[in-house]
Amino acid sequence: MTAYTPTKQDKFSFGLWTVGWTAQDVFGSSSRAPLDPVEAVHKLGEFGAYGVSFHDDDLVPFGTDGGERDKLIARFKEALDATGVVTSMVTTNLFGHPVFKDGGFTSNDRAVRRFALAKVARNIDLAAELGAPVYVMWGGREGAESGGSKDVAAALDRYKEAVDVLCAYVRERGYNIRFALEPKPNEPRGDILLPTIGHALAFINSLEEPDRVGLNPEVGHEEMAGLNFAHGIAQALWHKKLFHIDLNGQHGPRFDQDLRFGAGNLRGAFWTVDTLETGGYEGVRHFDYKPPRTEDYDGVWETAKACMRNYLILKEKAAAFRADAEVHEALAAARVDELRQPTLAAGESLADLRAEEYDVEALAARGAAFERLDQLAMEHLLGVR
Amino acid sequence: MTAYTPTKQDKFSFGLWTVGWTAQDVFGSSSRAPLDPVEAVHKLGEFGAYGVSFHDDDLVPFGTDGGERDKLIARFKEALDATGVVTSMVTTNLFGHPVFKDGGFTSNDRAVRRFALAKVARNIDLAAELGAPVYVMWGGREGAESGGSKDVAAALDRYKEAVDVLCAYVRERGYNIRFALEPKPNEPRGDILLPTIGHALAFINSLEEPDRVGLNPEVGHEEMAGLNFAHGIAQALWHKKLFHIDLNGQHGPRFDQDLRFGAGNLRGAFWTVDTLETGGYEGVRHFDYKPPRTEDYDGVWETAKACMRNYLILKEKAAAFRADAEVHEALAAARVDELRQPTLAAGESLADLRAEEYDVEALAARGAAFERLDQLAMEHLLGVR
Amino acid sequence: MTAYTPTKQDKFSFGLWTVGWTAQDVFGSSSRAPLDPVEAVHKLGEFGAYGVSFHDDDLVPFGTDGGERDKLIARFKEALDATGVVTSMVTTNLFGHPVFKDGGFTSNDRAVRRFALAKVARNIDLAAELGAPVYVMWGGREGAESGGSKDVAAALDRYKEAVDVLCAYVRERGYNIRFALEPKPNEPRGDILLPTIGHALAFINSLEEPDRVGLNPEVGHEEMAGLNFAHGIAQALWHKKLFHIDLNGQHGPRFDQDLRFGAGNLRGAFWTVDTLETGGYEGVRHFDYKPPRTEDYDGVWETAKACMRNYLILKEKAAAFRADAEVHEALAAARVDELRQPTLAAGESLADLRAEEYDVEALAARGAAFERLDQLAMEHLLGVR
Amino acid sequence: MTAYTPTKQDKFSFGLWTVGWTAQDVFGSSSRAPLDPVEAVHKLGEFGAYGVSFHDDDLVPFGTDGGERDKLIARFKEALDATGVVTSMVTTNLFGHPVFKDGGFTSNDRAVRRFALAKVARNIDLAAELGAPVYVMWGGREGAESGGSKDVAAALDRYKEAVDVLCAYVRERGYNIRFALEPKPNEPRGDILLPTIGHALAFINSLEEPDRVGLNPEVGHEEMAGLNFAHGIAQALWHKKLFHIDLNGQHGPRFDQDLRFGAGNLRGAFWTVDTLETGGYEGVRHFDYKPPRTEDYDGVWETAKACMRNYLILKEKAAAFRADAEVHEALAAARVDELRQPTLAAGESLADLRAEEYDVEALAARGAAFERLDQLAMEHLLGVR
Repeated sequence: MTAYTPTKQDKFSFGLWTVGWTAQDVFGSSSRAPLDPVEAVHKLGEFGAYGVSFHDDDLVPFGTDGGERDKLIARFKEALDATGVVTSMVTTNLFGHPVFKDGGFTSNDRAVRRFALAKVARNIDLAAELGAPVYVMWGGREGAESGGSKDVAAALDRYKEAVDVLCAYVRERGYNIRFALEPKPNEPRGDILLPTIGHALAFINSLEEPDRVGLNPEVGHEEMAGLNFAHGIAQALWHKKLFHIDLNGQHGPRFDQDLRFGAGNLRGAFWTVDTLETGGYEGVRHFDYKPPRTEDYDGVWETAKACMRNYLILKEKAAAFRADAEVHEALAAARVDELRQPTLAAGESLADLRAEEYDVEALAARGAAFERLDQLAMEHLLGVR
Repeated sequence: MTAYTPTKQDKFSFGLWTVGWTAQDVFGSSSRAPLDPVEAVHKLGEFGAYGVSFHDDDLVPFGTDGGERDKLIARFKEALDATGVVTSMVTTNLFGHPVFKDGGFTSNDRAVRRFALAKVARNIDLAAELGAPVYVMWGGREGAESGGSKDVAAALDRYKEAVDVLCAYVRERGYNIRFALEPKPNEPRGDILLPTIGHALAFINSLEEPDRVGLNPEVGHEEMAGLNFAHGIAQALWHKKLFHIDLNGQHGPRFDQDLRFGAGNLRGAFWTVDTLETGGYEGVRHFDYKPPRTEDYDGVWETAKACMRNYLILKEKAAAFRADAEVHEALAAARVDELRQPTLAAGESLADLRAEEYDVEALAARGAAFERLDQLAMEHLLGVR
Repeated sequence: MTAYTPTKQDKFSFGLWTVGWTAQDVFGSSSRAPLDPVEAVHKLGEFGAYGVSFHDDDLVPFGTDGGERDKLIARFKEALDATGVVTSMVTTNLFGHPVFKDGGFTSNDRAVRRFALAKVARNIDLAAELGAPVYVMWGGREGAESGGSKDVAAALDRYKEAVDVLCAYVRERGYNIRFALEPKPNEPRGDILLPTIGHALAFINSLEEPDRVGLNPEVGHEEMAGLNFAHGIAQALWHKKLFHIDLNGQHGPRFDQDLRFGAGNLRGAFWTVDTLETGGYEGVRHFDYKPPRTEDYDGVWETAKACMRNYLILKEKAAAFRADAEVHEALAAARVDELRQPTLAAGESLADLRAEEYDVEALAARGAAFERLDQLAMEHLLGVR
Repeated sequence: MTAYTPTKQDKFSFGLWTVGWTAQDVFGSSSRAPLDPVEAVHKLGEFGAYGVSFHDDDLVPFGTDGGERDKLIARFKEALDATGVVTSMVTTNLFGHPVFKDGGFTSNDRAVRRFALAKVARNIDLAAELGAPVYVMWGGREGAESGGSKDVAAALDRYKEAVDVLCAYVRERGYNIRFALEPKPNEPRGDILLPTIGHALAFINSLEEPDRVGLNPEVGHEEMAGLNFAHGIAQALWHKKLFHIDLNGQHGPRFDQDLRFGAGNLRGAFWTVDTLETGGYEGVRHFDYKPPRTEDYDGVWETAKACMRNYLILKEKAAAFRADAEVHEALAAARVDELRQPTLAAGESLADLRAEEYDVEALAARGAAFERLDQLAMEHLLGVR
């Protein structure tokens, strides 16, 4: 058995809310006691994690102020210092408290929107203080259950207003922070605005400072819409917008399962790792999952270790696949590389293409040879090559 | 009972391939004889349609050339002239012939890509000749069944190359044509590139001439991904990119059902019509559906008439909803209009928002009053108000 | 406009946990204060409800015993007496407390299974005392997130053991109670045992006293699996097993939305009501939904009234559809009634059928005329006939 | 690399329609020439397959009669004799020809129902002649697109009539044949009757000769409904009704992909093999898949070999998982075996359980230890243990 032991060079990170999820759901109460963020940092550091991320309320419970807040932050910093774990990302909880029941940036209630922006700004200061390079915005409550209740155009105006204002704030303060939007199609709202990678990418182009904003896509969120996650992040990378990533597992369109990475769609996880490792992604490998409610803390730590371990296993396999001579031959047979070649040669025009003779039946008869290639990938994944 | 009789002012249009679908599917052969495009035009005109649309191969079977092609086009023009029906949209079939089994613009096979571009260019000339203002691109075979077979970044490069080349062609020829991309998540490919409205919107921003390209979203395609169609077109309108629309019906994530408009998600259809009628959409109301394989041509014509009739019914109901004083009151109670108000007043900054006092518990306790509003919409839809 | 005012003759009932849901979900805390069951009974009675249902823990919080329990029950009975509202169904909460995190009847932990059975038995006594004719079993935590953790055959053995023991208990005590299993495919578990109407029907046939056990299907649960709810209850009625029903709304495969009845798949709701009203169902019309987290108690009461109102509206429309002469003609054209005629005439054998001459092409050419019929249903639903 | 070479002892079988699929779909025409069944038998035999299965029309094109039919059958038998490949299953095509557009056994058109029964009976004679032990019934067109067009109770009556008549026929003829129903939720019909394993199991209990009828579940069909296939076949085995199986791959709720076995949900495939190998299944391992339209016949044969190879790989891994001492320990920690122990001891009653003291909080605090177990399974699957 290979070691697959994570090190800080692997740049794994975890949300405090992942290992710290106490497992309350719609149908039942918590099955685990709260976890001290300090303990989380120590454990994760011990397992080889590089970073942690948090929502403001994960570190400082909603409504805590003044000296108590300072104490909590100080203790957390000590834990970071003691372990060498860094704050790799920070985000705001604009979904837990009932004040955000209709969203934060796009709540119909203007007072709520104002409170939401203030809450984010305050936490951005903390993010900057802790040196977090990425600030995530998951608008989980920005949405609707019914058609008449949300003016979508107005909501997008307000979403843009909020992100523009926060971009300006970060610029003015000189913070070295980039924003990353996290799309999700539904749950907890019936339909969420900016539901997929694509919708969020499109939205970014409408912002005042589009360069400052990218994406934080999550495996399960795209798979809840039946979308191919590796394709999604490949498009995000193509637009140079993959700023952060949430790795976990899901079984297609159903409730948000947040399984440990690898569980759920394992073949999809293989191509996800392959895309991250070969596609130029430079951020952390961040796990955003929920240890099942069945587990106690022993089980929680098993899942945290398994997330990293599965990534390392898949990374090794993806590399072996890419290095395999028979794979190279199969890629050539499948003309995968031919797609990099422009369709028109330099200087050619559509007129040239129209003048060309095509033996359409012969072209149609060429097998694409994709299945042999895919079987080779399968066998690398299964460890039988 | 009101008439709900369509007129040309309603701008309804149909694809030749809709009423002309002979009902071959994966599991069975055609249940209907081919329909002469000329008959289709006459029937649709008689029913009150404004326009027709077609793939090149709908009008001129694949491989037909020279004089025979000219004859077919001439007959079609005569039918248009005789009926006053216009060509409201044209598109290319890059999916039916096995030569396109791995796509057209993004086939791994460069010769296929060249043939595809030539095929499109030729048909754009016909579209211009017929005065079609919109040219749709549905890349139904641009995709993959397996992870290794498609280099997504290269595919997006080729997709961009193709659209850029075609934009330049239209510009150089002086054609008054805009392109509209039609997203779809899957089927017939395992996963299709540019799978949703969002992904296609994002892609457009990467083009050389983004102003020349917009969207042709289809109800069923978004609903196959579990997405809210009215939300999707509202975002497309927000980006000023709703150039055309494909109206039909679907029952959520499953095979592409292409039901007549209204069937499937009826409440969604109501909000779709409301969004089109109030959101500034100016294009045709185009039906892209398949009369079920159970029907003969009597049934086919019933479905065509029903598509238009259902639109008119829903339009009347949406207008009544928007005009209802109790609805106005409910919209106010739900603060729907308050979302149009910027979150920051003129001159305000985040510092002002942070300095403000928020009575969070009081804000949280305010009911959003969305259900009453939605029930009013329901009762308009059901015709009991 | 008709009144659509519910009366006790309409036999509408509500779970205490529906209007009483405080709106805690996976991502946020309660947005509403707890509702006193006594207030719920008074309100529902005032609105015209016939019955209420409850989990043991809805009425008597988990762990409450002795005198306090008696007091709560006594207050509840007074409310029933005062309002004339009856206890139409009772059920056990085997999912909320973390002790049931791996299920009740099929928990791997035998001590938990024993506790679960004891909890059910105690509550059955209360159900009998209150005269509830139906006792529902929703095994929401009976399932698994991973393949190795649950021995499905053993789990079905234990499920059967539990239901058999409880059937014997009810028989021995002479209680006039029937059990109704409530299937659900997933959520809160990754996969739930007896996931659909069909699986539960099949399971019942393996029991010692199958006559004592039927189903309580829920609209949203079947639609989460993409199944046609009206078809499902039609099959349950065909097996004479529709003992109770949970009416609500859902938007296909995604998280369990529990929308008010009518919201979600409205056309499905129409056929559901049609099936209930014409298919011989004799139980209560029970609403199991969750007023959205956005609503305060004014909104809660709106949703409760809307559930009943929507049922009455749909019932009126379904009756009008069935009474419409043009519908009768369309049903005949679609040969709907011909399906009631046995395929073989009395005395015929397969040999006779094989000897017969079939004009297959002529049969194939007959249009089924289903779309015209469906459009008539649509227009009844929309209130334009 | 291990051999994973199939032998007849592995009992692999293929439908003629799988490798012989010419790849026509809703959006395009065939990409492959027809395959001679004789060549299919030879190729499959050469690769190590044990059996083949077919629809009547796969072997003898629809409408072929008399001498030509006999010749086709004779050639086929010769191929079987020459290769030692057996006919492991036969079925009827009641879905391809437009005469079956509304189904066979449950078509509203009585003449069609009669023709369907005659067609099945004739083919059962051939099945008996060829020694096929299982006769499959996939009712792919038995269903509806709209609510009013199908009287579900009448349809189930006719379904029952058809199966009862055919059971009697087989009994009277003394054929050693058992029937296997194949459920599917939708496609090609909007909704199909008997949509899942559960619904079909329930239906069987209503038949005159239930012992003669079991199931032929298909991986992809259950996964199209988001159901856990291994759970489904475990329940079918529990009812002693798993007579045959269709192995393939699918990516959750979307069109029927019919991928080669292993592709799609790989973790599900592992548990499927584990369930088949440990759950007492004695039938063939039958592949019902479609080689993607991108492939030529080289690709087709790759997929056929890969189906068998993936099964053998997964079988080896499942066996290693079950033999692993650390797995045994993890199973014990997860109390998986404890579920086999009856909840009540011999002689115990509910009264005993109610008298018992439960330390509920202590029971709730016990971690279920499922994740560690699942990670061990994952690592066996990935070949890193």
